[in-house]
Amino acid sequence: MSELDREWAGQSNLRPVGIVGAGPAGLTLANLLRQGGIPCVVLERGTREYIETRPRAGVIEHRAVRMLDEHGLADRLLREADRHGACEFRVNGQAHEVDYAALYDGQTHYVYPQQEVVKDLLGAFLDSGGDVRFSVTDVELHDIETSSPYLTWTSASGERERLDCSFIAGADGFHGVTRRSIPAGAVQEFSHQHGIEWLSILAEAPPSTHKVIYALHPDGFAGHMLRSSTVSRYYLQVPVDDTVDNWPDERVWAELHKRLALRDSDWKLTEGRITEKRILDMRSYVVEPMNHGNLYLLGDAAHIITPVGAKGMNLALHDAEVLAAALMEYTRTGDDAGLRSYSEVCLRRVWRAQEFSQWMVFMIHRSPEPFLSRLGQARLEHLIASGSSAGYFAQNYVGP
Amino acid sequence: MSELDREWAGQSNLRPVGIVGAGPAGLTLANLLRQGGIPCVVLERGTREYIETRPRAGVIEHRAVRMLDEHGLADRLLREADRHGACEFRVNGQAHEVDYAALYDGQTHYVYPQQEVVKDLLGAFLDSGGDVRFSVTDVELHDIETSSPYLTWTSASGERERLDCSFIAGADGFHGVTRRSIPAGAVQEFSHQHGIEWLSILAEAPPSTHKVIYALHPDGFAGHMLRSSTVSRYYLQVPVDDTVDNWPDERVWAELHKRLALRDSDWKLTEGRITEKRILDMRSYVVEPMNHGNLYLLGDAAHIITPVGAKGMNLALHDAEVLAAALMEYTRTGDDAGLRSYSEVCLRRVWRAQEFSQWMVFMIHRSPEPFLSRLGQARLEHLIASGSSAGYFAQNYVGP
Repeated sequence: MSELDREWAGQSNLRPVGIVGAGPAGLTLANLLRQGGIPCVVLERGTREYIETRPRAGVIEHRAVRMLDEHGLADRLLREADRHGACEFRVNGQAHEVDYAALYDGQTHYVYPQQEVVKDLLGAFLDSGGDVRFSVTDVELHDIETSSPYLTWTSASGERERLDCSFIAGADGFHGVTRRSIPAGAVQEFSHQHGIEWLSILAEAPPSTHKVIYALHPDGFAGHMLRSSTVSRYYLQVPVDDTVDNWPDERVWAELHKRLALRDSDWKLTEGRITEKRILDMRSYVVEPMNHGNLYLLGDAAHIITPVGAKGMNLALHDAEVLAAALMEYTRTGDDAGLRSYSEVCLRRVWRAQEFSQWMVFMIHRSPEPFLSRLGQARLEHLIASGSSAGYFAQNYVGP
Repeated sequence: MSELDREWAGQSNLRPVGIVGAGPAGLTLANLLRQGGIPCVVLERGTREYIETRPRAGVIEHRAVRMLDEHGLADRLLREADRHGACEFRVNGQAHEVDYAALYDGQTHYVYPQQEVVKDLLGAFLDSGGDVRFSVTDVELHDIETSSPYLTWTSASGERERLDCSFIAGADGFHGVTRRSIPAGAVQEFSHQHGIEWLSILAEAPPSTHKVIYALHPDGFAGHMLRSSTVSRYYLQVPVDDTVDNWPDERVWAELHKRLALRDSDWKLTEGRITEKRILDMRSYVVEPMNHGNLYLLGDAAHIITPVGAKGMNLALHDAEVLAAALMEYTRTGDDAGLRSYSEVCLRRVWRAQEFSQWMVFMIHRSPEPFLSRLGQARLEHLIASGSSAGYFAQNYVGP
């Protein structure tokens, strides 16, 4: 902590930043602010155990890892995560590897489950004396358009509590209260249904290959994702409005075997106990701007994206980095340029990721319209065959 | 003409290839076959004057020009056409040049109106003694599934005539008779409506800049296309189901001025007498396979594509080149490998072009769905800013 930081940290009149939500965005922001000597309090509706074990995303970009590492938050990640610089596309029973690291400056993905990121961030924050209130309910935001916003909530023990804030950071996910506290008409909402549904499966099965696999099969997309040495995630494109009840374990495995099959190869998918089955609806959402008054939205509270391309958590980490820097600059110098450009800077990256994700969604799925399915296949064949398309893919997949 | 060619040309039992349609595809095929000593007859429903003056496309790829030149068919084109290796995108009142030639091996477009291509091809064919029947009506195809197909038609003078053929080449456009002569169920049709309409304008106005301009304006796309030193083509995205009646000349120019405007620049659009106004519906169509029995389809008879990316005529020229080579190989050696792979070879290029055109359609238009408009704009901003996206664009735009 610098001398200057120490000084602010000691300022009794410096109201804390109220952070709603202890996911990757909220906890990264909390750590960065705390390191910068800016007080903050994190409100979380789950228990510590719940957020430390809830499986979600699992792929982190080079750039986000570097940022966490610069703040001393990536020690275990760097020790334990697998680095991946290539993925595999399967089409017509053949496998095609795309070595995106080689195409983009050696940058790789880090495969590390989101709940482990949360565990690390939460541990670091609490170890440094950070203040997290778990199991809070009925959070309400007040006076966000003024310079004296405040939060109220019901604590785990049932007390109604209040925190006067300098700023409020909304990192409470798509269904959270923070975005809904913005008056109607003050922001513009963009949403899109991609018309595609996935069955998402988590199983206690070691990875069947050491690469992510995207398979384009006549019956629809199948994906093989990496989580850890003992757990894998799989995706199956299913008809819109399909339900989990239609997918007993045997059917799941039969369909995965069929769609991931390779011709003239003895490769085989490893099975394991299925621990989670969920239907995912491919949808996207963006709110513009990402702030209102002294409320700043981060991560899923401001934007959701399809899982295709694995951008969701990475965008959340970027938002946290940008907001932390802006709050630090403002607190230190009174210059609010970073706060004023926060939304624009984040949204540029968000729209880039949305465009890429949709490009990729289109490429790996069967469309009910045969013409569009052919276009998707042509896109994939071009990616496999062409330097120019692979360059676009690499830059956007592992970066930018 | 080689000795061998001379020999075939003299064979009295060599039935001619019947070519239906004297557009770029049909006439290129006719010239290449004639040069190879394979007899052919071209049927055309228009008059010579009609096909030599009908304005259509105007941009030819490097590769197609090289092919025409190899057959001595590009002399005037190479003398008169302007070469273009850069285009301009306008967004938010700013101009961004993309130098695609520099990004793709120095390859350029040749700007040369389609009717001039037709004039050159027709002249060359007739000068070499080629047989074209103009103003024919009621063309019918017979026995296309046998080795003795034949054509019948009504000649300009009202006689019913017949031609026994070795093969029939269907180059009579999307609405022609040849594709419709294939029995239902023998081929698969893929079609797509892009949900976008253009007002296409031709004017006696010199180009306002020496580059093609694609402008993304909040009110929709506007395009400035090059045709010749005295004629330009413009496009305006208009609401679906709009009609020409809604677009008096004054409104056309006002809208073009507005959508093409540059901030902080004294650039100005040059006006001229409007000679054509048409509504274009963005649609795509592909038939698979592109042959049935001894009927081979070329160009628009087999596939139509949006004007975005200027691929239509270039695909037609490619089809003609592939079919001419296959017919030549078969006639010389009896090997039908080229004929058997004709459809697959052509379709690979057709689907590549369709994918690229749709990528570009999405990028330069406003969608009624605001989320998709933002994605399109993100795609354009990435193209302007990024090497990887510009590489994809360059390869597909001027090539591949």
